[in-house]
Amino acid sequence: MSIIVMSVNAGSTSLKFQVFQMPEEIVLASGNIERIGMEDSIFGIKLKGKSEKISKVLPIKDHSVAVEELMNALIEHKIVNSLADIKAVGHRVVHGGEYFSHSVPVDEWSESKVEELCELAPLHNPGALVGLRSLRKALPNAEHCFSFDTAFFQTMPEENFIYPIPYEYYEKDHIRRYGAHGISHEYLTKRLAEIEGKPVDQMNIITCHLGGGASIVAVRNGKAFKVSMGFTPLGGIMMGTRCGDIDPAIVVYLMRKYHYTAEELDTILNKKSGLLGVSGISSDMRDVIEASAQGNPRAILTFSIYVSRVVEQIAGYYGLMGGADAIVFSAGVGENNDIIRQEVCDRLKCMGVKVPADNNFYIRGEEAKLSSDDSKVDVWLIPTNEELVIARDAYKIYTNGK
Amino acid sequence: MSIIVMSVNAGSTSLKFQVFQMPEEIVLASGNIERIGMEDSIFGIKLKGKSEKISKVLPIKDHSVAVEELMNALIEHKIVNSLADIKAVGHRVVHGGEYFSHSVPVDEWSESKVEELCELAPLHNPGALVGLRSLRKALPNAEHCFSFDTAFFQTMPEENFIYPIPYEYYEKDHIRRYGAHGISHEYLTKRLAEIEGKPVDQMNIITCHLGGGASIVAVRNGKAFKVSMGFTPLGGIMMGTRCGDIDPAIVVYLMRKYHYTAEELDTILNKKSGLLGVSGISSDMRDVIEASAQGNPRAILTFSIYVSRVVEQIAGYYGLMGGADAIVFSAGVGENNDIIRQEVCDRLKCMGVKVPADNNFYIRGEEAKLSSDDSKVDVWLIPTNEELVIARDAYKIYTNGK
Repeated sequence: MSIIVMSVNAGSTSLKFQVFQMPEEIVLASGNIERIGMEDSIFGIKLKGKSEKISKVLPIKDHSVAVEELMNALIEHKIVNSLADIKAVGHRVVHGGEYFSHSVPVDEWSESKVEELCELAPLHNPGALVGLRSLRKALPNAEHCFSFDTAFFQTMPEENFIYPIPYEYYEKDHIRRYGAHGISHEYLTKRLAEIEGKPVDQMNIITCHLGGGASIVAVRNGKAFKVSMGFTPLGGIMMGTRCGDIDPAIVVYLMRKYHYTAEELDTILNKKSGLLGVSGISSDMRDVIEASAQGNPRAILTFSIYVSRVVEQIAGYYGLMGGADAIVFSAGVGENNDIIRQEVCDRLKCMGVKVPADNNFYIRGEEAKLSSDDSKVDVWLIPTNEELVIARDAYKIYTNGK
Repeated sequence: MSIIVMSVNAGSTSLKFQVFQMPEEIVLASGNIERIGMEDSIFGIKLKGKSEKISKVLPIKDHSVAVEELMNALIEHKIVNSLADIKAVGHRVVHGGEYFSHSVPVDEWSESKVEELCELAPLHNPGALVGLRSLRKALPNAEHCFSFDTAFFQTMPEENFIYPIPYEYYEKDHIRRYGAHGISHEYLTKRLAEIEGKPVDQMNIITCHLGGGASIVAVRNGKAFKVSMGFTPLGGIMMGTRCGDIDPAIVVYLMRKYHYTAEELDTILNKKSGLLGVSGISSDMRDVIEASAQGNPRAILTFSIYVSRVVEQIAGYYGLMGGADAIVFSAGVGENNDIIRQEVCDRLKCMGVKVPADNNFYIRGEEAKLSSDDSKVDVWLIPTNEELVIARDAYKIYTNGK
């Protein structure tokens, strides 16, 4: 029997949602509420079969009001007949620490752990909890579940998640590599297995989630083997405004020279670095590429650093895993930026990667095999779908509970 | 005509030296003075043709006294007839910033720049200056020269030395990737070209200087293309007591949680991390391997992390360069630890590396080709010889000046 399942991604001032008919995986509605807490909040919803998004600006003082608006809209647009139709809600949580290796029902224990992990993800976990609490008030009888962006990485061997710092910081403070975008990397892995008609546990691939945040994952036998993102989403490769892994002495040097506080360092490394920091132009790769086409030297430099870091990371994981059958590109830059993909793939020719330029086109939102048939490593473009993974997991938990 | 050239490596409490007959490159004497400033300083010297080192313990209050002892010993053991025989002295300097891309004569300008760079290498450059000044007093008529551990990396393209942090920190504070062990990597590159009878500018290789400090370099067309060590010698791969590149948020987290000062963070990351930090046993790979052979889980973990980081870095540079013809191992761990070499090479099979275990033996201090003939990438063991590079450069500068 079909049921309605919601997938929710709540931040401190935003709430994204998708409403699915499951198990058919039909998206009945999707949208987002932004600028929660402001006088000019924006509520947007897109309905199945309609190409236009309905948008309105109104004051939304908190997440409870946002959820109320959302519920009214679902009734008004006849997505559901009554709120009781919504049987399950999956909530995305950025940090699941070492407690969660898969999605779980919300209960006293899991909720307390997500709360505890606010220390490790102060910018993200609190939003998810506020979102949960507002939706639980609106939908008290639905099965609420957590899906974690770190869960996929809990299979990594210890050698790939322990940092070479004193071990006591792992024991006492849980400092380790947790990764991020796990829901996306899991989706890409399973989806490629499906496309290729292979069992998931035979997937030896490198998945590249290249968006504003970016992470690259070595997937061995269908499981995460290593992820570029680290203790926090600041680690790994260069991103829109984040620097990725660097010589940590740089932080100490800045601290000593400028007497920066922890907050100031956070801002510099998380918000003012990456594409924005080097180019001085924008955190958006499209702007950087446009400026480099016009000959801006800092934009050209930024582009080159970004490509080099991606190439080095993919090649590094190729070696670490003992080879890979495929590379998958996804997310903003990975899906929509053929120039980056081409540069990266051209430089990986030494590993047998062959992506002819005329094969590297894409239709927004569609899957495509980019490599030629004689490429030693398949290269795929797969639009990610984190909402679907969350909805699937919530559906599974709901039906298992019946 | 043959002349005597000295190669000197002075630290804050130590002074290592070698005395060469050039251009024949004959080592007439070598040794070191340790614990300068203590009541129980150690003076050690080894003479050509003697297998035993002569060692004595005595109070040496400063570098001037150390140099006096050294000069007396050279006369006493008839290495030189008079101090005037020593025509040139090459001084090793860790940090040459962006000023020096090769060895130079000491003059007012170069000395002032080495002094200025003490800010970037506070633990190293001051020692070199003290060493220079003591030796210049003892040998006022010799040609004194600087050789820089960063010079070899000044050929790196900007994309490989700019960090993805705000560009102003490069402009204002010169924060960039400088690298280290450049004298060693340069030696290994030139030596392999010599062995293989190839022009240096055709060398596309990866050189691994794996000692207490460790760095890996991508050498393209004979020039440094990228180096794992960074702004300081803390960057790059895991080392004896240093962590290498990590998610910089770890530093900020520790700062916030424990209110560590810059000095305390320096100590944790530079002196208490790496092999020592993870194993809790030792910073020496031999101790770690011994403990792992006895089943110590933290030692096994430490070994695995180290190998993984080396594998990931070599493979990453292989991709970044678009392939490599050879991998060279050198320095303490690289030369003398066949277990590490074997593990690393076995995991690089996917890149066509073949090192049969029975080919991976070594005789201490001797060069050896470790890969089989059908290996796609040659693997070499080359003992490094930084002193020789320094002496050669000093000899060249001296003879050019004549």
